[in-house]
Amino acid sequence: MTPTIGIIMGSESDLPVMQAAADILIKFGIAYELTIVSAHRTPDRMRTYATEAKGKGIKVIIAGAGGAAHLPGMVAAYTTLPVIGVPVRSSNSIDGWDSILSILQMPNGVPVATVALNAAKNAGILAAQILATADEALAQQLVAYKTQLEDDVMTMVERVEKK
Amino acid sequence: MTPTIGIIMGSESDLPVMQAAADILIKFGIAYELTIVSAHRTPDRMRTYATEAKGKGIKVIIAGAGGAAHLPGMVAAYTTLPVIGVPVRSSNSIDGWDSILSILQMPNGVPVATVALNAAKNAGILAAQILATADEALAQQLVAYKTQLEDDVMTMVERVEKK
Amino acid sequence: MTPTIGIIMGSESDLPVMQAAADILIKFGIAYELTIVSAHRTPDRMRTYATEAKGKGIKVIIAGAGGAAHLPGMVAAYTTLPVIGVPVRSSNSIDGWDSILSILQMPNGVPVATVALNAAKNAGILAAQILATADEALAQQLVAYKTQLEDDVMTMVERVEKK
Amino acid sequence: MTPTIGIIMGSESDLPVMQAAADILIKFGIAYELTIVSAHRTPDRMRTYATEAKGKGIKVIIAGAGGAAHLPGMVAAYTTLPVIGVPVRSSNSIDGWDSILSILQMPNGVPVATVALNAAKNAGILAAQILATADEALAQQLVAYKTQLEDDVMTMVERVEKK
Amino acid sequence: MTPTIGIIMGSESDLPVMQAAADILIKFGIAYELTIVSAHRTPDRMRTYATEAKGKGIKVIIAGAGGAAHLPGMVAAYTTLPVIGVPVRSSNSIDGWDSILSILQMPNGVPVATVALNAAKNAGILAAQILATADEALAQQLVAYKTQLEDDVMTMVERVEKK
Amino acid sequence: MTPTIGIIMGSESDLPVMQAAADILIKFGIAYELTIVSAHRTPDRMRTYATEAKGKGIKVIIAGAGGAAHLPGMVAAYTTLPVIGVPVRSSNSIDGWDSILSILQMPNGVPVATVALNAAKNAGILAAQILATADEALAQQLVAYKTQLEDDVMTMVERVEKK
Amino acid sequence: MTPTIGIIMGSESDLPVMQAAADILIKFGIAYELTIVSAHRTPDRMRTYATEAKGKGIKVIIAGAGGAAHLPGMVAAYTTLPVIGVPVRSSNSIDGWDSILSILQMPNGVPVATVALNAAKNAGILAAQILATADEALAQQLVAYKTQLEDDVMTMVERVEKK
Amino acid sequence: MTPTIGIIMGSESDLPVMQAAADILIKFGIAYELTIVSAHRTPDRMRTYATEAKGKGIKVIIAGAGGAAHLPGMVAAYTTLPVIGVPVRSSNSIDGWDSILSILQMPNGVPVATVALNAAKNAGILAAQILATADEALAQQLVAYKTQLEDDVMTMVERVEKK
Repeated sequence: MTPTIGIIMGSESDLPVMQAAADILIKFGIAYELTIVSAHRTPDRMRTYATEAKGKGIKVIIAGAGGAAHLPGMVAAYTTLPVIGVPVRSSNSIDGWDSILSILQMPNGVPVATVALNAAKNAGILAAQILATADEALAQQLVAYKTQLEDDVMTMVERVEKK
Repeated sequence: MTPTIGIIMGSESDLPVMQAAADILIKFGIAYELTIVSAHRTPDRMRTYATEAKGKGIKVIIAGAGGAAHLPGMVAAYTTLPVIGVPVRSSNSIDGWDSILSILQMPNGVPVATVALNAAKNAGILAAQILATADEALAQQLVAYKTQLEDDVMTMVERVEKK
Repeated sequence: MTPTIGIIMGSESDLPVMQAAADILIKFGIAYELTIVSAHRTPDRMRTYATEAKGKGIKVIIAGAGGAAHLPGMVAAYTTLPVIGVPVRSSNSIDGWDSILSILQMPNGVPVATVALNAAKNAGILAAQILATADEALAQQLVAYKTQLEDDVMTMVERVEKK
Repeated sequence: MTPTIGIIMGSESDLPVMQAAADILIKFGIAYELTIVSAHRTPDRMRTYATEAKGKGIKVIIAGAGGAAHLPGMVAAYTTLPVIGVPVRSSNSIDGWDSILSILQMPNGVPVATVALNAAKNAGILAAQILATADEALAQQLVAYKTQLEDDVMTMVERVEKK
Repeated sequence: MTPTIGIIMGSESDLPVMQAAADILIKFGIAYELTIVSAHRTPDRMRTYATEAKGKGIKVIIAGAGGAAHLPGMVAAYTTLPVIGVPVRSSNSIDGWDSILSILQMPNGVPVATVALNAAKNAGILAAQILATADEALAQQLVAYKTQLEDDVMTMVERVEKK
Repeated sequence: MTPTIGIIMGSESDLPVMQAAADILIKFGIAYELTIVSAHRTPDRMRTYATEAKGKGIKVIIAGAGGAAHLPGMVAAYTTLPVIGVPVRSSNSIDGWDSILSILQMPNGVPVATVALNAAKNAGILAAQILATADEALAQQLVAYKTQLEDDVMTMVERVEKK
Repeated sequence: MTPTIGIIMGSESDLPVMQAAADILIKFGIAYELTIVSAHRTPDRMRTYATEAKGKGIKVIIAGAGGAAHLPGMVAAYTTLPVIGVPVRSSNSIDGWDSILSILQMPNGVPVATVALNAAKNAGILAAQILATADEALAQQLVAYKTQLEDDVMTMVERVEKK
Repeated sequence: MTPTIGIIMGSESDLPVMQAAADILIKFGIAYELTIVSAHRTPDRMRTYATEAKGKGIKVIIAGAGGAAHLPGMVAAYTTLPVIGVPVRSSNSIDGWDSILSILQMPNGVPVATVALNAAKNAGILAAQILATADEALAQQLVAYKTQLEDDVMTMVERVEKK
């Protein structure tokens, strides 16, 4: 199956956080590719990745990075695909504030869809929601997932009320 | 033309900021509807709006709010459509920090695609990018828009270098 | 005894923090109910909880949540009962700033009585103070509790001055 | 009519903000008294005010202050009445952060019900909600007020959708 | 020897931090008293302490507190002695920001001499500097202490350059 | 009269803020000198000023600066006199945060008595309090000043209650 | 004269801030070029600029940008020349925090020499200092400039002391 | 070999962070000296160090400090050499914010080239880049280093894609 989602991150050290995006896509049966692309250490690789993504069939790019996190915004500079940015609270980050602001505060013309700090899982769900705008079967999966979230809470309710 | 984008905001006072989302959608020829939905003052209207949006043909919801900005996240709680959140630096906001954090920091399971403070224009572009994942003509419009952004910079370049 | 205080929280993981509200209510002999209500995963349960609380005899709602903490504010949107919000420094929170601002910065018309980060005990005391505005026996208990706080400090004083 | 709400503030310069608490209480027909009590310049007046409030018939105290805002917390130290704190963005405040944190972050045992920055109106509504826990007629007024808020939004909706 | 410095703190849990103030005063041969005074739990004790300090021979008060740290400012409200405030990063503090702002941002008329977060040692040195403005022998001790600080650095220099 | 207080500031642009220190000292009849000393542009002048101050009869130094405000801390490095730091919200400051943290967060061994942002008046009062530890007449003036502060509040009280 | 310093900025709206870098270079007789290069709107122009700069004789690049300011860091990704970053407090910036953190918090391997918010003048001086490491005549100019700074303060001193 | 880079830091406790600057300089074959210089405890040593550095052959100074970090800025006050500041997240620092702002926010006329929090390695690379503006062999080493960074990422890519 050709991947429709590209998951990239600035460093292998972001993988423990970013894996959650892959995991949820697997759950939804969405094909993805996952690799390392560093804006600062491999800028040409980033440029190639971003400019070729659409041609390869990628529909949404999920990009995670920490500190002065330029990867999501620069990928967005090179493509018209929707780019979802995941601010990572990496070891070189100031409690995540730098990661968040570097990804979120993009200038007019070049948006990045930013999710919460370390929220790679939500990046995956958002990517699914985007694909689902043209895929009713996937949309139904998302409805089922929402029901599952609700059921999980109801399980908690029972457990807590029993105490 | 049936609207495919729903633009909502918590108060009429958010309109000067949020209008930019509508303006860019007009530029891309994308039909939208725009109205006021307050999470705190009209929670049932919000619920109805969010639960009925998909059935009406809406594919993406853009929601702007300021202060303890619950509208984008609560709409996302009620729908599986992608929700784009626009943090508004309203008069009751603390320099926008409350608006940003209330919209961005959603828990796992319920993402909001957050754009920069007051960046309603980018919310509109992101909505177009989402639709374009299944609409090649629109995708080409986005490529042309990117070229236009580049041309605008080159005009600046000439003006500045002439000085 | 019919509960007069409703303690709710967004997730079971908030329970270690929120239990302190229950504990202090027990100390004051105030009946409460405690359960999980997630604004984002069980919005309809939240709506039901909030709209039915008064009818059930609940007089004050204590709601704890972390991150983009919408539970206290959305419950306040659905009820005219006083709502006490407890910002929880949960694992997905940015040092608690998101929890605090999402709960505190409510717009005009829909207040939430916010207490300190993780201060569920104070939420319980505040709930007791509210009930005590119409319950002189409880008011006397609060006076006694205040004396107890003072006595605890005097015990510290003795211990420290002895060193 | 004996006042049941005491509105106090640290300085006359807080009055333009704090007046909104009085205005909404007038709307609800709740008697209040309003005066200046400075924690730092008139600490004994503060002590007297706080210790005598309950005996005079006051049921809720609303205290507004800016900067190192000690008034709400110190009043709470001297009384068992519910104290609502209004952080004021005064000229000597750092964007309101000092006002908020000085009022909100009270230690266990001595809560202050904190509302949003400058949100004196919400302090008034919260005071009414507290009284309404034992006053069904007032509770009905609050329900009507909530409906009014909703109607105000619907008026905005019409105006915006007409454009 | 009658104490000339009063060291107070809001809770016994502040003692590990505040002990450093006592230790440095011992080094300078300055008599002090040290006790627990809680602004919020023992407000009358605080008032008595502050109003009687000068009469007892106290010349400088060092007050440490965390969270909504009202002790230094309220003591300053009750006395004309210099009050040195030590913001404590206690467990209920938000990284110390609340402690710092609650102590530092005092209104005109009532200063608190604030030192760095947890810097009780510097509070002790500052107290000594204040006494030394009228005690040349102590002033000479401070000069010797400054030389000692310099010597300590020179020892580090040797150790580091040897590596 | 030989000055006992030295008021210095990093730039003439700080004078509108720092003048308040001089004004209150005049009120207390305390002789002062006031001049410009820049840590970064005139480091040797700063060194001379700081090392010679005590010999000239100066007992307390008040130093105001903005941005990366090194003047108070560096003066404290060169003298054993008490140094009062006034963080100035200058045009090159980030809302005063840089000024505050650069002055407040001094390392162990070298304290700076920091007052609130722009609070030069409080710096002057604190300097008077320091001198008053060895000058009972001045101490009585401070008591009278405190009474004046209280009277000013009582005047406000009358004015506000009349409304 | 071939330019040795390249001054670039993300938008013409940064020019009023960035002009100060050019002005000080003119004062030092250092040839520069100045143009607009947008990381997000003209990424290929940025890449070309950065990769060709050294070959053209540029020795230092000064890059100014605001918001999610990626220009300095991305230029540094493409060149081994020293890159000086100027965080600009642009209209879309959150008080400059986003500009600062996006430029400063670069990962290991790819430094950006960051100066203060809006401090383009200092960027120019730093560029001169860098060139002066291999140009003794320029080094002497910098010494003279430092003397000039000192003289300017002494002029202030006279003016202030005369008052 | 005469050292061309001076690495200094405020305390031996900064050495674990600052060592990375030395390590990378060794890699580039650049001679350096490393020692402890405290702005606050050894101000005269700092002055001597800064004023004599150029005469000794030092071309760039790297200065690391934490808290109210005055060392980099004060060294820059005494020399016209480029000064690179490394904000250290020391134990007495507030999450590094004080270190960053004290170093970064220098006034016009006296720049400090600030790198990321704890980024001593980048300080070393930046120093090498500065020397390389007049040393083509070193410039080639930096190009090779950049290639190495890229290769390291490609190794990660292989490892991650294999999983």
